[in-house]
Amino acid sequence: MKKVAGILTGCGVYDGSEIQEVVCTLLALARNEIAVEWFAPDEAQRDVVDHTGREAAQEGRNQMREAARIVRGAIRPLSELTPADFQGLIFPGGFGVAKNLCSFAYDGQAMSVHPQVEAAVLSMHRQHGCLGFICIAPVIAAHVLGKAGRYPLVTLGDNAELAGMVEGWGATHQNCAADEICVDKGNRLVTVSAWNSAVSPLQVERGIHHLVERLATMM
Amino acid sequence: MKKVAGILTGCGVYDGSEIQEVVCTLLALARNEIAVEWFAPDEAQRDVVDHTGREAAQEGRNQMREAARIVRGAIRPLSELTPADFQGLIFPGGFGVAKNLCSFAYDGQAMSVHPQVEAAVLSMHRQHGCLGFICIAPVIAAHVLGKAGRYPLVTLGDNAELAGMVEGWGATHQNCAADEICVDKGNRLVTVSAWNSAVSPLQVERGIHHLVERLATMM
Repeated sequence: MKKVAGILTGCGVYDGSEIQEVVCTLLALARNEIAVEWFAPDEAQRDVVDHTGREAAQEGRNQMREAARIVRGAIRPLSELTPADFQGLIFPGGFGVAKNLCSFAYDGQAMSVHPQVEAAVLSMHRQHGCLGFICIAPVIAAHVLGKAGRYPLVTLGDNAELAGMVEGWGATHQNCAADEICVDKGNRLVTVSAWNSAVSPLQVERGIHHLVERLATMM
Repeated sequence: MKKVAGILTGCGVYDGSEIQEVVCTLLALARNEIAVEWFAPDEAQRDVVDHTGREAAQEGRNQMREAARIVRGAIRPLSELTPADFQGLIFPGGFGVAKNLCSFAYDGQAMSVHPQVEAAVLSMHRQHGCLGFICIAPVIAAHVLGKAGRYPLVTLGDNAELAGMVEGWGATHQNCAADEICVDKGNRLVTVSAWNSAVSPLQVERGIHHLVERLATMM
C-alpha cells in the first residue's frame, strides 16, 4: 500500500494546522487508498490564539499534543520521521504552518524553515518521492526547493503580494482558484491554495481531493 | 435557504467534539445547501485530555472557545440559540458530548442533560423541526425524548450495553453499521453511530452524509 507522512502543527487555523484541511486530507487519502502517518514537532507552539476573537492567549501549548486532537491520537514527533519509509509528504495549511514550521508569519520573505521540515522535504525530493502542500504551506516548498536550486512552480491562490514573495526565492507562482491544483511535474510537487483563498469548505474539499488524486498518480 | 443549528462542545474526541465528525457534518450540510450556525456552551469543559496519551491535563478550557477552532471562529454561546430561527438541530459526537452536554460519561443511565440542550431539543421537537444526532450524541435524544414520553428509535451502533441503557429510558435501540442511519419518522429524528463504532473515516463520512441527506428531505 502507498504511504505518505502528513506534517501537522497544532490544532486550529489561527495558531495551528487548519482543521478542515487536515480532515479533507485524511478523507482524500483514504479514498485513494493511501495510508498516512502523522507527525508534528514535539515543541511549544509560537503562540496560542483565542479563535472566537483572534486575540493571543497567555498560555503554552505543544504542537504535537494539540495536533493529536485532529487525528485521534495517532501522531509521532517529527524528529522520528524517516522519509525513506514513505512515498510522499503532505502538508495541510493553517497559520501554524507559517508560525511553527517556518517563520513566514513573522519574517515574510526573510523567513527560515524548521530544520527538521527542511531536511524531510529535501530528503523526499532526493528520493523522488512526491510532495503535496496546501493553503499557505507552499511557501515552504518554494523556499526549500528554491534555496536548493530546484526552483518550483507553486500556487498560493491569486494574491499578488504572496506571489511576489515566493518569486523572490526563485519559485514561479501560478494563479489558481481555491480548488484548482498547480502541478510541478519535475519536482513531483502539487500545491493548492484551499482556505488560503477559498470562500467555502466545498472548494477546500475539492481542491484537496484533486491534489491527493494527482499525488496518487505520481507514487 | 434551509438552516440548522449545530451544537458543539470543545475540540477533540476525548474531551470535546469529535473533530472529523464536525468537519464531515459541515461538508455534508454545504453539499445539501443547508446553512448552519454553530453554538456551544460558553462554559468550562469538564476536563482536558492530552490526546497523545489520553491522560487528564491540569488545565481549564472553555467549550465554545475550543470549538471555535473547528469552525474558524463562527460560533456563539448556546444561551443565544433561538430554535425558532432554525429548521433543525444537529449534534456531532465525541466524549465532550457525554461529559459537557450531558453527564453520560460519569453517570451512565442516571445521567442528566445540560438544561439549555434539553430545552433546545424539546423546543425543536415541538415546532416539528428535525433532529440529527451523531456518534454518542443519540443518548441525548433518547434521554430527552424518552423523558417527554416521545420514546424515540435511535442507534448507537451495535453495542448491547449501550443499547440496554437507552432502552432503560424507554427508547428503542436499532443495531446499525457505522455508516447506516436510523430514522425515527414520527420524531423527525435521524441518528448514526459514526466514530462510536466506525473503523475508518470513510465510514464516518458516509454515515454523516446519509444522515444530513435524510434530514434535508424532512425540512
